Amino acid sequence: MKKDKDSKSHPDLVADWERLFRVFIRPEGQASRATLIKYMDPILYGLNDFLKTHVGITEAISLKELSNDFMDTIICENPEKKLADVISCLIKEIAPYAVNVASPYFVGHMTSAIPFFMVHLKTIVAALNQNVVKLETSKVVSVVEKQVVAKIHRMIYNKKESFYQENVQNTDTTLGVFTEGGTTANLTAMWAARNAKFPPKDGFNGIESEGVVAAYQAYDVNRCVILVSRRGHYSLKKAGGILGIGHQNIIAMDTDTKNRVDLSCLKRTIARLKKETPKTCILAIVGVAGSTETGSVDPLEKLAKIAAANNAHFHVDAAWGGPTLFSKKYKHLLNGIQLADSVTIDGHKQFYMPMSCGMLYLKEPHTLDVIAYYAHYVNRKGSVDLGIKTLSGSREANSLILDSALKIMGRKGYALLIDHGIETAAAFAKEIKKRKLFELWTAPVLNILTYRVCPPAIRKQLESASKEKRREINEKLNTVNRRIQRIQREAGYSFVSRTTLLQDNKPDDAIVVLRSVIMNPMTTIDILKEILDEQEEIFNLQLRDLLM
Amino acid sequence: MKKDKDSKSHPDLVADWERLFRVFIRPEGQASRATLIKYMDPILYGLNDFLKTHVGITEAISLKELSNDFMDTIICENPEKKLADVISCLIKEIAPYAVNVASPYFVGHMTSAIPFFMVHLKTIVAALNQNVVKLETSKVVSVVEKQVVAKIHRMIYNKKESFYQENVQNTDTTLGVFTEGGTTANLTAMWAARNAKFPPKDGFNGIESEGVVAAYQAYDVNRCVILVSRRGHYSLKKAGGILGIGHQNIIAMDTDTKNRVDLSCLKRTIARLKKETPKTCILAIVGVAGSTETGSVDPLEKLAKIAAANNAHFHVDAAWGGPTLFSKKYKHLLNGIQLADSVTIDGHKQFYMPMSCGMLYLKEPHTLDVIAYYAHYVNRKGSVDLGIKTLSGSREANSLILDSALKIMGRKGYALLIDHGIETAAAFAKEIKKRKLFELWTAPVLNILTYRVCPPAIRKQLESASKEKRREINEKLNTVNRRIQRIQREAGYSFVSRTTLLQDNKPDDAIVVLRSVIMNPMTTIDILKEILDEQEEIFNLQLRDLLM
Repeated sequence: MKKDKDSKSHPDLVADWERLFRVFIRPEGQASRATLIKYMDPILYGLNDFLKTHVGITEAISLKELSNDFMDTIICENPEKKLADVISCLIKEIAPYAVNVASPYFVGHMTSAIPFFMVHLKTIVAALNQNVVKLETSKVVSVVEKQVVAKIHRMIYNKKESFYQENVQNTDTTLGVFTEGGTTANLTAMWAARNAKFPPKDGFNGIESEGVVAAYQAYDVNRCVILVSRRGHYSLKKAGGILGIGHQNIIAMDTDTKNRVDLSCLKRTIARLKKETPKTCILAIVGVAGSTETGSVDPLEKLAKIAAANNAHFHVDAAWGGPTLFSKKYKHLLNGIQLADSVTIDGHKQFYMPMSCGMLYLKEPHTLDVIAYYAHYVNRKGSVDLGIKTLSGSREANSLILDSALKIMGRKGYALLIDHGIETAAAFAKEIKKRKLFELWTAPVLNILTYRVCPPAIRKQLESASKEKRREINEKLNTVNRRIQRIQREAGYSFVSRTTLLQDNKPDDAIVVLRSVIMNPMTTIDILKEILDEQEEIFNLQLRDLLM
Repeated sequence: MKKDKDSKSHPDLVADWERLFRVFIRPEGQASRATLIKYMDPILYGLNDFLKTHVGITEAISLKELSNDFMDTIICENPEKKLADVISCLIKEIAPYAVNVASPYFVGHMTSAIPFFMVHLKTIVAALNQNVVKLETSKVVSVVEKQVVAKIHRMIYNKKESFYQENVQNTDTTLGVFTEGGTTANLTAMWAARNAKFPPKDGFNGIESEGVVAAYQAYDVNRCVILVSRRGHYSLKKAGGILGIGHQNIIAMDTDTKNRVDLSCLKRTIARLKKETPKTCILAIVGVAGSTETGSVDPLEKLAKIAAANNAHFHVDAAWGGPTLFSKKYKHLLNGIQLADSVTIDGHKQFYMPMSCGMLYLKEPHTLDVIAYYAHYVNRKGSVDLGIKTLSGSREANSLILDSALKIMGRKGYALLIDHGIETAAAFAKEIKKRKLFELWTAPVLNILTYRVCPPAIRKQLESASKEKRREINEKLNTVNRRIQRIQREAGYSFVSRTTLLQDNKPDDAIVVLRSVIMNPMTTIDILKEILDEQEEIFNLQLRDLLM
């Protein structure tokens, strides 16, 4: 191994102080600078053209083959490469084997093209390298963060001007926090809900201090549950597991025909819990505003009422759908969100910010007091340090990016993106229905839909088939749809994802569907037609026999 | 408010499709591009010069005054500014009121200058916008991540080549994960330790599924504790609170004269727990390798033995000190780290990466199996999706930055930084001892030290004072040191932080100390002398009377 290790080092590069200073401060000489500019310029000033020219969606190389080039695990003694060479390698050898999420043909996941200015903003955030955990490493940036949080809070809750004047820069209150993503935001919401249910009282220091066992004893409870539809994000189960209440206590409610939580199921469940297990505490009821798999939106107003009647925290997971509020035309789809005790919205989804940025908003400005932590050297009591009420400690200043983006786009700019997504998805659904080979599985409410390949003859068979026969046919269809998705992905021209949904909430009737997320403004109905054409071709040439 | 809202919009800017496309794809015209280049160029190619010219450490403006400019909470209808103007505003109006953490005079926190190439790398990561939660949105980047994780794992654990060949690209095993920061890494470690202690067995589905109450019943336990020195990071308490075991069960061990965990206290505590509360489960023993407040390192080898003897998970929080392993000269300070079941290291600390990046490393490649989560549309069982075993879901590809940095710096490059920090801190300690006004409080082991202003006459008084008198004097000194730190910070030329340490582990003897973290390679002993000069001057001119 020794030999291998040394041979990796660049023959002309040594790690010495002279080089170190240059590496810290500026490019190594004019030639290096010229090379750097050559690569950084297209990244900064023409990102989309650049990706279009250089990167397909993916290259048709297997993971196994790829992996073979990344087996060496020894850190080189001396530098291997100059910065310009490292960047050139990232562009020429890594980028082509990454995934071109910016392509308008990439409509499978919630990761997409971002406006080129986002890259500039991220660069500035990195260059300033502020740490928002505390004022001493961020100063004005903490102030900007409080302001932009209040702006989004206002979009959700629309409280009075006096409320915002009182809270926007109030160092004691918290209208929202930035997190790493939706998972941490959902976890933070459930954490706060848990702690609020088991606060300190005589002879008990609170659940955060004494733990779940002591808390249940102190309040004569033997189980906590969180109720959310089957479409709820898996991070809620994860939160249940992490928080010590057990992920089996995140109870999945059936959904109605539009993939919204079935309110009668929810009410029945609550009634049953109260009757059969009176010591069960309903910690939270969670509404989904833009479910990951189908984009469906729960009836938030009705959920809010049920939550209030049962003294449960009402959380809305709007990680996906939140920015729909930008659109005057479609914001009614989220009616009731203003009643939520807490709301998750992701920055890296429909705010089109770079990875990774999530947010949690709170109706009441003291909700997060129950998760506050202090330390001697930082986050001291009474300080304005933003890290006091966040799960994470050190944290980059993504708030600067969001604040700038709002200024560059305006509300209307974001609304254009939202409207485009919803309307293009509607047009896509229409096209799917027109084509005989496809079956629209879940119609879009926002900009996500699912469908599957299911030839008319098979559809007919399904209608009259026995339960067993139906299952048999669906399994064949599942295989076909799984393979279509994989073949298309591997061909590298376009990408839809797939997921598995239950027909009529029956665990035995699992249906594999193709899933399409329309968020790229460059994705047109013509592109979507091409994607369907390709799927038809794959089916006709390669998979038809599987259904015989 | 209506008027206000409209007046913010830029008169020439409307949010329409034409502009939206331009905003997504490239700068708006040649003039805009020229302006952008003007601002982005110094950020990319001469960051340090740029900051030096434009930004002091902080401006002497109060938070209150600053806040007044950031009270408006309405999102503008149309764009307020073009990108170039937004950037110009960030540079001219925000940066001067941010904190110049890159200054060599900023020696108070663990946030510092980063090499300029880190900004380039972060830019590329943002431009590619891969999401490492799943292979379908990252492909080769997931492979690179597994490789660089193995490289750091090797630096810590130095297992055999065959071990790495088997695991580096193994999709079933996990040598480490990237997190948002050290807090999430510590939380993940404690989460895995908790779940491993209460696995599924006959009639019990495991703690993750059933929760803490059922787990304690199933295993006849009534309390879990985590043992760590007083110097342990507050994120461990937070982890205890979140995980439902209660943060009061994170028990703080006294420290010895060198701020390391007092092993006799640890042993006594364990013996007492076993005798008095036999149903207490010792979940984990945590060693600190570079404590936040003093940079001290626990005796890791001995802790490993004690943990093994008590069947406890042994975690090392090396968020700060981990990269000391790069230095041949000083890596012995971390002896025993290779015995840890898990190790936290922060990327945004001594790897000099931009905010926010933490990591957790695991001795055994299946340790994180107990925290795995799956979903239908992603992270499917048997897939290689890296999001299966992380707390977060969507996640940016910080691994690309670390991988590139290792290539640019080489092991020796990082070692130069580590050696500089340790040796400059030692020289600083010597200088503090030389000056009569100062009292070195904790001598540096790595590159962190604490000291306080304490004039010789007062020191003399303290030596012979009664307990009450001593407390009285120390409180005066605490006030003086708090004020010196604040006055110096507000003057804006240099910055040290402060914390509170207990003398001889006695809660009544709380000592406020100045805290200095030497990680910037531009920080020389001469700069540190200037910082002491300034403190002497502040004391002599403004605070001397307080001690009369």
